[in-house]
Amino acid sequence: MGSLFKGFERIEEARDRLSGRSFMAGLFAGRPDFPLLLLPEESPAETEVWESYRPRLETFLTTQVDPDEIERTAKIPDAVLQGLFAIGAFGMKIPKEYGGLGFSYTNYGRALMLIASWSNVLALTVAVPQSIGIAMPVLLFGTEEQKRKYLPLVAREAISAFALTESVTGSDAANVQTDAVLDSGGMAYRLSGEKLWCTNGTIARYITLIARVPARRELCDGRTVWVPVPEGKEAEDRVHTAFILDMDLPGVRVRQRCQFEGCRGIENAYMTFRNVRIPAANVIGDVGRGLKYALTILNVGRAISIPAICLGMAKQAWQPTLDRANDRVTFQRPLAERQTQRMRVGRMAADLFAMEALAFSVWRMADRRDYDVRIESAIAKICCSERTIRFLKDAQTIFGGMGYETADSKRVRGEPAFGIEQLVRDAEMYRIGEGATDILRPFVAREALDPHLERARTYLEEEPIGLRRLVKLGSLAAFYIPWYLRQWIPSPLPSRPEFRHPNVRPKLRFVERASRRLARAMFYSVAWHRQALRDDQGRQNRIESIGEDLAAIAITGLYAEAQRGTAGYVEAWDLADEVFREAKVRVKRQIRALISNRDARSAGLGVKTLGGACPALSAGIIARGLRDYQMPEKDAVGTGEGRKQAAV
Amino acid sequence: MGSLFKGFERIEEARDRLSGRSFMAGLFAGRPDFPLLLLPEESPAETEVWESYRPRLETFLTTQVDPDEIERTAKIPDAVLQGLFAIGAFGMKIPKEYGGLGFSYTNYGRALMLIASWSNVLALTVAVPQSIGIAMPVLLFGTEEQKRKYLPLVAREAISAFALTESVTGSDAANVQTDAVLDSGGMAYRLSGEKLWCTNGTIARYITLIARVPARRELCDGRTVWVPVPEGKEAEDRVHTAFILDMDLPGVRVRQRCQFEGCRGIENAYMTFRNVRIPAANVIGDVGRGLKYALTILNVGRAISIPAICLGMAKQAWQPTLDRANDRVTFQRPLAERQTQRMRVGRMAADLFAMEALAFSVWRMADRRDYDVRIESAIAKICCSERTIRFLKDAQTIFGGMGYETADSKRVRGEPAFGIEQLVRDAEMYRIGEGATDILRPFVAREALDPHLERARTYLEEEPIGLRRLVKLGSLAAFYIPWYLRQWIPSPLPSRPEFRHPNVRPKLRFVERASRRLARAMFYSVAWHRQALRDDQGRQNRIESIGEDLAAIAITGLYAEAQRGTAGYVEAWDLADEVFREAKVRVKRQIRALISNRDARSAGLGVKTLGGACPALSAGIIARGLRDYQMPEKDAVGTGEGRKQAAV
Repeated sequence: MGSLFKGFERIEEARDRLSGRSFMAGLFAGRPDFPLLLLPEESPAETEVWESYRPRLETFLTTQVDPDEIERTAKIPDAVLQGLFAIGAFGMKIPKEYGGLGFSYTNYGRALMLIASWSNVLALTVAVPQSIGIAMPVLLFGTEEQKRKYLPLVAREAISAFALTESVTGSDAANVQTDAVLDSGGMAYRLSGEKLWCTNGTIARYITLIARVPARRELCDGRTVWVPVPEGKEAEDRVHTAFILDMDLPGVRVRQRCQFEGCRGIENAYMTFRNVRIPAANVIGDVGRGLKYALTILNVGRAISIPAICLGMAKQAWQPTLDRANDRVTFQRPLAERQTQRMRVGRMAADLFAMEALAFSVWRMADRRDYDVRIESAIAKICCSERTIRFLKDAQTIFGGMGYETADSKRVRGEPAFGIEQLVRDAEMYRIGEGATDILRPFVAREALDPHLERARTYLEEEPIGLRRLVKLGSLAAFYIPWYLRQWIPSPLPSRPEFRHPNVRPKLRFVERASRRLARAMFYSVAWHRQALRDDQGRQNRIESIGEDLAAIAITGLYAEAQRGTAGYVEAWDLADEVFREAKVRVKRQIRALISNRDARSAGLGVKTLGGACPALSAGIIARGLRDYQMPEKDAVGTGEGRKQAAV
Repeated sequence: MGSLFKGFERIEEARDRLSGRSFMAGLFAGRPDFPLLLLPEESPAETEVWESYRPRLETFLTTQVDPDEIERTAKIPDAVLQGLFAIGAFGMKIPKEYGGLGFSYTNYGRALMLIASWSNVLALTVAVPQSIGIAMPVLLFGTEEQKRKYLPLVAREAISAFALTESVTGSDAANVQTDAVLDSGGMAYRLSGEKLWCTNGTIARYITLIARVPARRELCDGRTVWVPVPEGKEAEDRVHTAFILDMDLPGVRVRQRCQFEGCRGIENAYMTFRNVRIPAANVIGDVGRGLKYALTILNVGRAISIPAICLGMAKQAWQPTLDRANDRVTFQRPLAERQTQRMRVGRMAADLFAMEALAFSVWRMADRRDYDVRIESAIAKICCSERTIRFLKDAQTIFGGMGYETADSKRVRGEPAFGIEQLVRDAEMYRIGEGATDILRPFVAREALDPHLERARTYLEEEPIGLRRLVKLGSLAAFYIPWYLRQWIPSPLPSRPEFRHPNVRPKLRFVERASRRLARAMFYSVAWHRQALRDDQGRQNRIESIGEDLAAIAITGLYAEAQRGTAGYVEAWDLADEVFREAKVRVKRQIRALISNRDARSAGLGVKTLGGACPALSAGIIARGLRDYQMPEKDAVGTGEGRKQAAV
């Protein structure tokens, strides 16, 4: 089986096996290890770090940053960026010895959430350099020299960014076309190509860039390494490599600042490179491991930045939405007395609680270096971005026409200028960026199915029956028969006081039961569909969805338990119960559909329509295909040579 | 029981009982009258009218209108409006004797759909004057003199609009505060107040305005009429009245052109009136019947304009989305080969087909004057706006990052400048305008429950048991026992050839069976929940949803049957089957939930959070309530006196 997708092989190679503790890995195997969710109390020192930083950050934002101005002018004023540097906000994740604040993931998440509640665009601008910009790659994979040189710079004065995506390379990160060829002297690379949608690209001084280096394999200390070949001669492959690129180098051109539905203030670049000379010392880590680094780095974004920003946006919208529902009177009663709006608000509260519980749990796991939070990160990213979009849409609906009008337009009449429509537009960014939902779902399913796929390779490959294969199938049966029987036997909950609470027990028992049911359903799917499961994204998406819901149930239950006694959280049980109610129904439905569903019929209709079978659906209008929206003239910027530079 | 909502009484009074044929009324009573869905063939003359107009319209749009310019400049050029007048596009619904084109509803819908596929904003600008602007109210309720004076004007040269909404009057249309007081001479009214979100208001010469006139009741030819009282003296009430307002009159001030998330090109006004003198001859119809007229007029918008515009938008997005899925290669395979996208495209196709079938059916019913399409209109409006939003969001997802980037931004790089993000933003307008989904759902449920509520009034009111009441309860039992038993007996399908088709029969049989199940569930709800049903919007929304799905199943089935043999619709059965599959699952689930659900728990959580029980959900951010977004200064336009006029 090897790869879940054809063409996915490069990304597969770049992945490591899960290492370290992973609650989700156990959950997918029918053995959820609940104690992994019980994280030790945060040290008072860590709490203190945040509590002392928070007022500085808050004061800076409320006195120096006008979020409406950022939206109106589509520009973050330079003074704001300088101010953020001055309070160290661009170096929160950078250790103190390199000029940063040395925050834990949890504190970094808290800070981003706070900034995002004031301006999500500002939070994104601050997050990119620290999660995927220069900071993380250099910190994780750079040399000591690179750390000493670049980390203080990006912590204190230089904006950084991350450049992976190209016109033909979106979710398909391996398909990078930009080349970096070692020159004949071996001291520098010549970079040619382009990068698209590079957030902070128009204002960044340094970017982490993934390019492909012509190289050949060599054996070094018993392991294979890629060695770049000068002038690209006799290369065996063009391998992904990460570079630190100084944007001031000749040949780097920012061609365009891209504009989107939302996040109007972000500085997103389309840039081209023509024979840019990058010093060889600017390679990060090993040649050929760039994709692996990129995927590792993106995990940080998924685990921390996106959930934090989403949470900040949802929290920002929460109180104004409650106020609106309480204040707005129609038919002589406030909206808050209408059942539709009450149910909507109830669901919003549960969504917010689930996001908060999930995000904080993953941050605290990430702070424990013995956890591998890869699956949890992807799930937190999916859950927080998707729920935030739903949450904000719900809020917009409660605002009625006022929810559709822009903040500026409302301000003219003296109405509260709360820009929920902006938040709705902005939130879509977080569904797409740093791993779109459609890509992450199968990614999670892949991790869930991985142990089966590895173990059952012989069975799945359908090679001719021979003695060797029979032996393998025998040993497979020897493994799977007891494994399968075990999936019918409930595991008792560990005897920890946290699990004994009458509001926690039923939730964890449901998760335990459903986790075995999911493991069995996954087993049936592998056994029955074999190779076909590779392309069965309907089932893959369900595996993710079930995993996400079960994680949400367990984590919100324990989060509520941990809040017991905290002022202001007396209703935490109600919130956790609502998460449970909604998730339970969906989990049951999805497990049934994992075994039997009608996806093939729907997909079959899709195939027919994609093949052009229903032209009448376009009847009655002025027919335009995608190409009709393309300019025939040559005045586009394009990627080719000799075209004139567009205004930034 | 009287009214479904407290405060809803005025709107209740303004409603007539359903008159004329109504498929939905029968469906909700467990007796769907399928032959009502078989409409006679359109006359060749009608088809010819459209076929000869279509090329003119199409040529005008493609040669004279740049939709991207409208989006970019947020302005429809005056030449475009003049051109539309020149080809009669503002008079399509106006009879020929008054200077219009005299189109049928169906042809009007086709034209709007075509315009919307080029620019939905332009279609809306054209639709407003004809559905809710001057044309419809004057045509339906005006005097012959008004018709001769105003209809040629609005058909040929003057933009018109409709002004009902005010700051405190959104969905709650009865709550109009604007006053029109008859002056002492009795020849004119003095208008004072404001109107908000008046589409076309900034460019309109005439508007239909709903204001409240101080009046007293008089008996006239045996019926009660409202007679306006001079200077408002001795008025019994302030009654809703429709006026033709000339925007050039002194005292009318357009204070602001409002801006929204989408539909950037619409000319939407906030306006104030200060002692505007409207001639008494400008009253439309009777004093005191303005709300009734407004509700009748809004039906036209719901039935024709919104579905047509939504359909045009979805159709516009359809082919580019198919192209994108076929062209875009990730992981060495086009998106069109991924199951997630195939299923998504399949669902989109079914959504588009359902919208088309529903819209055309309602238009053709509206053309038959013996149908009462009130429920069908509301359902078509909900279905088309909600499905279009889902459809466009699906399309946006298929476009990935390109779906989030603006058309202009993509054009710079020579990418196809298809603005799916704009369509997504624009579409939200149609969920809110002319009756928001949250309002129309209970409205449909109200119509569905109406016969029960009327009949069972005695039972529901819970007055003390006395002889009179016992007699009434007895006669209620005498009615409901056979009625209830009948709901268990299948009705055979009428023996028409259309119903015999093996692909139609199972759909109609399902609808017939589910309709009886729905009728029983509604009966239980009334019997069991009595008064509580008034506020049980969870159940009300489900009744609408079930009705909508059943209508969609029956109508798409028959629509597919009618297309049989039509070139390009060979796959119509697949489309209708997909609609059926999705709707069937939902109908079963919703009928179960109509009897038993956990809404009270979710709503209870909503009540608690609305009451401020979960302050911790706002923890960790910079706390801002709705009032924190309100400007403290007095430089807003406001509605009060003496404030300076804002720039339009």
